[in-house]
Amino acid sequence: MREPGTPARLPHPEADLGLLSPVRVGTPVAAAVGDPAWLQAMLDAEAALVRAQARLGTVPAKAAGTIGSLARADLLDLREIALAARETANPVVGLVAAFTALVARTDPAAAEYVHRGSTSQDIFDTGAMLVARRALDLAVADLDRSARALSLLARRHRDTPMAGRTLALQAVPVTFGLKAAGWRQLLLDARDRLAGVRDGGLPVSLGGAAGTLAGYLEYAAVDAGVTDTGGYLDRLTDAFAQETGLARPVLPWHALRTPVADLAAALAFASAALGKIAVDVQTLSRTETAEVAEPAPAGRGASSAMPHKHNPVLATLIRSAALQVPHLAAGLTQAMLAEDERSSGAWHAEWQLLREALRLTGGAAHTCVELAEGLTVRPGRMRANLDLTAGRIVTERVAAHLAPHLGKAAAKVLLTRTAQQAAAGGEPLAGLLLRHPDVAAHFDAGQLAELLDPTAYTGAAGPLTDRALRRGARR
Amino acid sequence: MREPGTPARLPHPEADLGLLSPVRVGTPVAAAVGDPAWLQAMLDAEAALVRAQARLGTVPAKAAGTIGSLARADLLDLREIALAARETANPVVGLVAAFTALVARTDPAAAEYVHRGSTSQDIFDTGAMLVARRALDLAVADLDRSARALSLLARRHRDTPMAGRTLALQAVPVTFGLKAAGWRQLLLDARDRLAGVRDGGLPVSLGGAAGTLAGYLEYAAVDAGVTDTGGYLDRLTDAFAQETGLARPVLPWHALRTPVADLAAALAFASAALGKIAVDVQTLSRTETAEVAEPAPAGRGASSAMPHKHNPVLATLIRSAALQVPHLAAGLTQAMLAEDERSSGAWHAEWQLLREALRLTGGAAHTCVELAEGLTVRPGRMRANLDLTAGRIVTERVAAHLAPHLGKAAAKVLLTRTAQQAAAGGEPLAGLLLRHPDVAAHFDAGQLAELLDPTAYTGAAGPLTDRALRRGARR
Amino acid sequence: MREPGTPARLPHPEADLGLLSPVRVGTPVAAAVGDPAWLQAMLDAEAALVRAQARLGTVPAKAAGTIGSLARADLLDLREIALAARETANPVVGLVAAFTALVARTDPAAAEYVHRGSTSQDIFDTGAMLVARRALDLAVADLDRSARALSLLARRHRDTPMAGRTLALQAVPVTFGLKAAGWRQLLLDARDRLAGVRDGGLPVSLGGAAGTLAGYLEYAAVDAGVTDTGGYLDRLTDAFAQETGLARPVLPWHALRTPVADLAAALAFASAALGKIAVDVQTLSRTETAEVAEPAPAGRGASSAMPHKHNPVLATLIRSAALQVPHLAAGLTQAMLAEDERSSGAWHAEWQLLREALRLTGGAAHTCVELAEGLTVRPGRMRANLDLTAGRIVTERVAAHLAPHLGKAAAKVLLTRTAQQAAAGGEPLAGLLLRHPDVAAHFDAGQLAELLDPTAYTGAAGPLTDRALRRGARR
Amino acid sequence: MREPGTPARLPHPEADLGLLSPVRVGTPVAAAVGDPAWLQAMLDAEAALVRAQARLGTVPAKAAGTIGSLARADLLDLREIALAARETANPVVGLVAAFTALVARTDPAAAEYVHRGSTSQDIFDTGAMLVARRALDLAVADLDRSARALSLLARRHRDTPMAGRTLALQAVPVTFGLKAAGWRQLLLDARDRLAGVRDGGLPVSLGGAAGTLAGYLEYAAVDAGVTDTGGYLDRLTDAFAQETGLARPVLPWHALRTPVADLAAALAFASAALGKIAVDVQTLSRTETAEVAEPAPAGRGASSAMPHKHNPVLATLIRSAALQVPHLAAGLTQAMLAEDERSSGAWHAEWQLLREALRLTGGAAHTCVELAEGLTVRPGRMRANLDLTAGRIVTERVAAHLAPHLGKAAAKVLLTRTAQQAAAGGEPLAGLLLRHPDVAAHFDAGQLAELLDPTAYTGAAGPLTDRALRRGARR
Repeated sequence: MREPGTPARLPHPEADLGLLSPVRVGTPVAAAVGDPAWLQAMLDAEAALVRAQARLGTVPAKAAGTIGSLARADLLDLREIALAARETANPVVGLVAAFTALVARTDPAAAEYVHRGSTSQDIFDTGAMLVARRALDLAVADLDRSARALSLLARRHRDTPMAGRTLALQAVPVTFGLKAAGWRQLLLDARDRLAGVRDGGLPVSLGGAAGTLAGYLEYAAVDAGVTDTGGYLDRLTDAFAQETGLARPVLPWHALRTPVADLAAALAFASAALGKIAVDVQTLSRTETAEVAEPAPAGRGASSAMPHKHNPVLATLIRSAALQVPHLAAGLTQAMLAEDERSSGAWHAEWQLLREALRLTGGAAHTCVELAEGLTVRPGRMRANLDLTAGRIVTERVAAHLAPHLGKAAAKVLLTRTAQQAAAGGEPLAGLLLRHPDVAAHFDAGQLAELLDPTAYTGAAGPLTDRALRRGARR
Repeated sequence: MREPGTPARLPHPEADLGLLSPVRVGTPVAAAVGDPAWLQAMLDAEAALVRAQARLGTVPAKAAGTIGSLARADLLDLREIALAARETANPVVGLVAAFTALVARTDPAAAEYVHRGSTSQDIFDTGAMLVARRALDLAVADLDRSARALSLLARRHRDTPMAGRTLALQAVPVTFGLKAAGWRQLLLDARDRLAGVRDGGLPVSLGGAAGTLAGYLEYAAVDAGVTDTGGYLDRLTDAFAQETGLARPVLPWHALRTPVADLAAALAFASAALGKIAVDVQTLSRTETAEVAEPAPAGRGASSAMPHKHNPVLATLIRSAALQVPHLAAGLTQAMLAEDERSSGAWHAEWQLLREALRLTGGAAHTCVELAEGLTVRPGRMRANLDLTAGRIVTERVAAHLAPHLGKAAAKVLLTRTAQQAAAGGEPLAGLLLRHPDVAAHFDAGQLAELLDPTAYTGAAGPLTDRALRRGARR
Repeated sequence: MREPGTPARLPHPEADLGLLSPVRVGTPVAAAVGDPAWLQAMLDAEAALVRAQARLGTVPAKAAGTIGSLARADLLDLREIALAARETANPVVGLVAAFTALVARTDPAAAEYVHRGSTSQDIFDTGAMLVARRALDLAVADLDRSARALSLLARRHRDTPMAGRTLALQAVPVTFGLKAAGWRQLLLDARDRLAGVRDGGLPVSLGGAAGTLAGYLEYAAVDAGVTDTGGYLDRLTDAFAQETGLARPVLPWHALRTPVADLAAALAFASAALGKIAVDVQTLSRTETAEVAEPAPAGRGASSAMPHKHNPVLATLIRSAALQVPHLAAGLTQAMLAEDERSSGAWHAEWQLLREALRLTGGAAHTCVELAEGLTVRPGRMRANLDLTAGRIVTERVAAHLAPHLGKAAAKVLLTRTAQQAAAGGEPLAGLLLRHPDVAAHFDAGQLAELLDPTAYTGAAGPLTDRALRRGARR
Repeated sequence: MREPGTPARLPHPEADLGLLSPVRVGTPVAAAVGDPAWLQAMLDAEAALVRAQARLGTVPAKAAGTIGSLARADLLDLREIALAARETANPVVGLVAAFTALVARTDPAAAEYVHRGSTSQDIFDTGAMLVARRALDLAVADLDRSARALSLLARRHRDTPMAGRTLALQAVPVTFGLKAAGWRQLLLDARDRLAGVRDGGLPVSLGGAAGTLAGYLEYAAVDAGVTDTGGYLDRLTDAFAQETGLARPVLPWHALRTPVADLAAALAFASAALGKIAVDVQTLSRTETAEVAEPAPAGRGASSAMPHKHNPVLATLIRSAALQVPHLAAGLTQAMLAEDERSSGAWHAEWQLLREALRLTGGAAHTCVELAEGLTVRPGRMRANLDLTAGRIVTERVAAHLAPHLGKAAAKVLLTRTAQQAAAGGEPLAGLLLRHPDVAAHFDAGQLAELLDPTAYTGAAGPLTDRALRRGARR
């Protein structure tokens, strides 16, 4: 902040600096997918391409070196390149012009080899895959970290009983360990899907104007007498893949959008997996339930109006991402309907959707680390809530014990009626049951008390938790 | 661009300056909805609120004046406010802290009245409505401009025949005038829906912490002895509405999200209406059809690879928006499922979706102006394409004339077979028909030639165009 | 059910009879939009068209009478027509063939006038609008009924205090009357949007093969010597609109999909409005909160496992619709991107999405009537929950009273700390505050107790409820 | 059809028999996912569960046998079960009641073991997985068949040149072989994703009321003295998985919806992959382009109005599915936000969306077989279209040859200008180029003619096709 009268230089009027997206502002993924990173990634693609061509001898090594050393986003005017895209419908045409001019100022001969034989989409898509890889690295690491934190919680609370809830009502007891193990399970599923795409699903784009690599081949022929079409195709693709660290595609994918659709699916999954944890944390945080609480460093969760509030803001942020990403992913999947060799619009619809999906998911994953590592669990409140229904939470169990005596149907009817009566009268179930001759004939007060102990009816919660924890977070 | 070795100050690493969204970069709407404008709109809401309170005498006029004069985004650190939102899940808590401190440096007494009785959502949502109104103003004006340009085209080409196409194939003749009138019709529909929301559908948000205005009332009671609850409610709401120029809501709408859902629906509609024009322009621009061409100032539509290309980039940009906005709108509509008095996540999911929908639609509307005003129409190509099927495009007409003689069914069978034969043999339909006794019995060569003239079978295209053009673009 | 050994005739293997969609099975809208109703609506369109033509003298009245009397779905084989659509991509071609044959068996001359000059899309779309109108009638009536029930609830509980909740936590007090008034507000908004589309937004489709009405005009010329193109266009459109009771469009809308997009938007809005009520009912029904309960006739809300369960099934069904319809609506909006004079795919994608959106929304509206009319409200539980935080729910109020003495910022800090201390120690706020010198200096125990009474801090909840209820449910 | 006066028994008024969904009506998948199949699958789940329990000795074998033999959908009243679901929000409660009564009529003792220890969601979700497996089997087989057909096309047309098109315009030459190989690539990707989910991603659901299996365990204890919680958990899960042929989950997944989200992603991908082929076929079928044609048995592709039409209906149907499924999939992904141990609404929103996604995708896959096996390819039209621009389609190539002489930038400028001039004047490029001194200095007419031959500039299209075809369709 500045003194009044000393106006700040406001950001560019069109800038999005995260004001409307707290789930990702300031998180590592936000910088990894910002415009500067995207511009740099496209320059990285240009540099890798010319290095690959130099390795195959179709471009002079010196030119490749010069081009590579100048492939720096900070040497170009990002905004000018962004604006130029209105003339050509993509930012690469302007980027190539500006970058060629930049190289030409150092070495006009080298400038001849910028983008040689290439096409906009090769550079943009390769850049996008580089950006995606960095974003996925961050998200995978954060999911692993959260999974580890949830392992600890699950282990610590393996036998902490709490009310299981279905259709909004207390159903039968569960344990917090099982709940945490379930959350972890989803995060590992998310992690596997993201890592699966990252490790093999992010290819270089190398097709030339219409996916035949004709431009690359023609320049290779003219510049270096290359005539071995199939061989050069293989060598150039391999070299480009090696220079970028990306995968080698079977075919150019200008209009075969598997990589983007796969990314979309994995990101939607991950965001929604994180969202499941968020809605559970919110539900358990409610004032009336209060079984968990978010970590609360000073100022966290504050309200602008209410001093007593300590809002579950981490879960709120995570859920806000989960409510957005699946919609973005649907748009990305539909962009597979790319007509011709390159689409007039479907491709262009992908860019912002993809970046938004990457940073929302990555931001939510990052936010979840703090949530998982700092979550306060309150076994006392869990226990108190288990007792709220004075035994009704285990009617299923009682039914199983009455069934051999009364038949399953009659047992259920008896318990349904008695439970209603107990709820209406606010009376504990035990007393009412004992007064019922069909119950009293088979169970005394002690046996019934044992049956009605909610902490003794957690089924296989413990073994399930153990089994789930055996599934390792990779690496 | 700079000399090599003189690195530019790159934008903030997290910045989105439009590199991935050429449909809106540099258009007026992009600046109208950028982070700085959004920050300013929230400050405008704070200033309007305190002015309203001052009008009612519950806040000193001087304090309101000071607060209003300092409500300038350039006096605050936008990025700091954005980052603070991670602690509280919205940017207003940090904004209020920073703004209060700013005011306090000038006048500590005035600072007491910043955000008095208010809550984050009142400020954010009022700010959002201010931003939306400005964006809608721009979009409505651009739609009107495009509609005017399409009126001219429709009038000029009222009787320009061209092939009508259905399920990808030539069907029966139409006119370009009718097509342009249809495009205009959609734009007027879009305009009406956007203007409808703008004019009455954008209310101030004034509810206080949970929609009872209790905070506002309590401060009014404490500060100025106000006890007339219902009256003050009405006066404050009216005054706030007047100060902002926004509508007066029946109820606080923290969790009743009609305004946002209405915006979403209107924006999705408008983007898709523009998208219809785009897909038509693309179809008609195809090399093999070539009946229209986009305006082409130098450099426009250039390819990074192919010197001969003049890509239909305006239509491409517009279509890219149309493929995104309906997905964003679905997310916004779902945010209506806001639990409690204020949602923990659904509200937060709206912000970025709404801004994106505003700027994509506004950008597409702006782009369409240039497309509509500059479109080249090629009646010669239209005429040539009408002749491509050598008469088959009017089999429907011939069927109507044969029906009275042969019956409708027999007439259709005859024409189906003859048309297939004509297509297979590449022969004009006329000759084949004349050789058929059932045709020759009723029509001579001259009559048939007249029937087969595609330019004479445009039905009510002319009167329809006239009638459509009578619907006025408002204002 | 039958005796074992007496197998029932199962429904057709492909049949959807609602097994997977309990929100609409058995509700009036389900029958209004089923395949039989849709088939009948298309026949109604054929009959109305020929009656309109007869009124204008281009078709013999007798033929129109015969055609009209045979336009009965039960005289045709629906499944055969459905299957035939695989050959032509729409069900009308097969319908016309079957219907023409049916008429021909009674009167071959009349059969000549079936579908005269018409095209598939005119019949399908007019039929769809007829179906939509009937479905909207049902939904509007059900929304009105629910709104009336909510009026009663709002009036009855105008002053019933309960905890207002924001971001999942108790915030400040509200009233149940205000909450019910808010629900009603959304339903009236939904009702207005649906009625708005119904009353004027559902036009006949009358364009002929490519939107020029050329076929209609040509037959009128051949059959009756009509040469007045513009006049006949107007007269035929008017007559068709009158015969169907649908609106008169400005232009044929084969590829200008405003009516469908408007339907989609209104249905998505209505489903989500209903969904807001559902999530609130679920939240308030939770075992730990238990402030409302769904109506419970015998068997309602039963679980297959747990005898004590009385699940909030109505809210569950409503929410299940709200989670689906906005997605369907996005698909319908995107179908506006219909290339050419009629689309090869976008139109075809609308049909099932539209029916599903109609019946989910209509089913949810119907379900809401029972929910709204039978909802149990528990003021006692509301009161008890208000006391859960032992005063912290009104810290905002206390802050307003301390502010004049301490300054707003200091007051907030004091209350934040004290509230945290109270929450941590499980101690009532009053005692802690009174021990604080800055409080004790200005308030005695009695004054503080008054300030901390949550039932006295409902702000303008009462007047707001009154004002909201003044907005009438139409008709 | 029947005689007039002999009304048919119309289907149930609420029935969907496919009238609005020609892409799937009458295809195998439609029957595999209809209500009867779904009901049967739930009964299969009940039977498999009791067989599994019998294998472990906790249920008498005879009871299991009786239950299994009566688990037939045709012994129950599907519609009654569907209607009952309105009372309980899912069809299983009513199904269990009806099925228990059915068994009881044969053997009251056996009836005690129906659904023993179980819960609705176990049965529904296991049934859903059985249905999904059958639907995926069909889709995978159809994708394989289409891929084989496309292999043949790609091989046959490995060297058939055609215009490559980007952003709607002719760009550089490609081959039809490469295009077909690309289509096949997408179908194999789709196949892999569907098969990947089918083979391991479809688990039994076995959790009991809240995912602890407590009911199963309690009955096992009561009925058979089982006390080995972890062991019985493992044995029962294994046995149930074996009896159904489904996978064994790590944890009960009532609220961990990975299987459904994975299905959604794979189905959306597959539908969109099919959709890419459809939009390409439509584009190439356009009257002005006419390079491919759909197979045309009699009646196929007929219009109700225009005798000459042979509409690309298969592509239309496929595209109609692709425009729907990604929206449905977004809804399914969002259902992962399932609060608590079982959701009140998110689960219920899945059912119809899942079925629709299965049958739309399966129907589209089935439709594609006929399209791929019957597609007519017209090399002559492709050649003619290649010549439409009189050489401009290979400006990229000429640029590569001029670049060494003029520099890349100057070469591009020269060609851009000359190409514009050629297009404007309708003149062949060759003549204009030869008149340009910078060209004439380096190339004579013969060399230039060679360079301008579009069939000689297909780059690596051939080798790429070879490499793509090496990727095998499995089985």
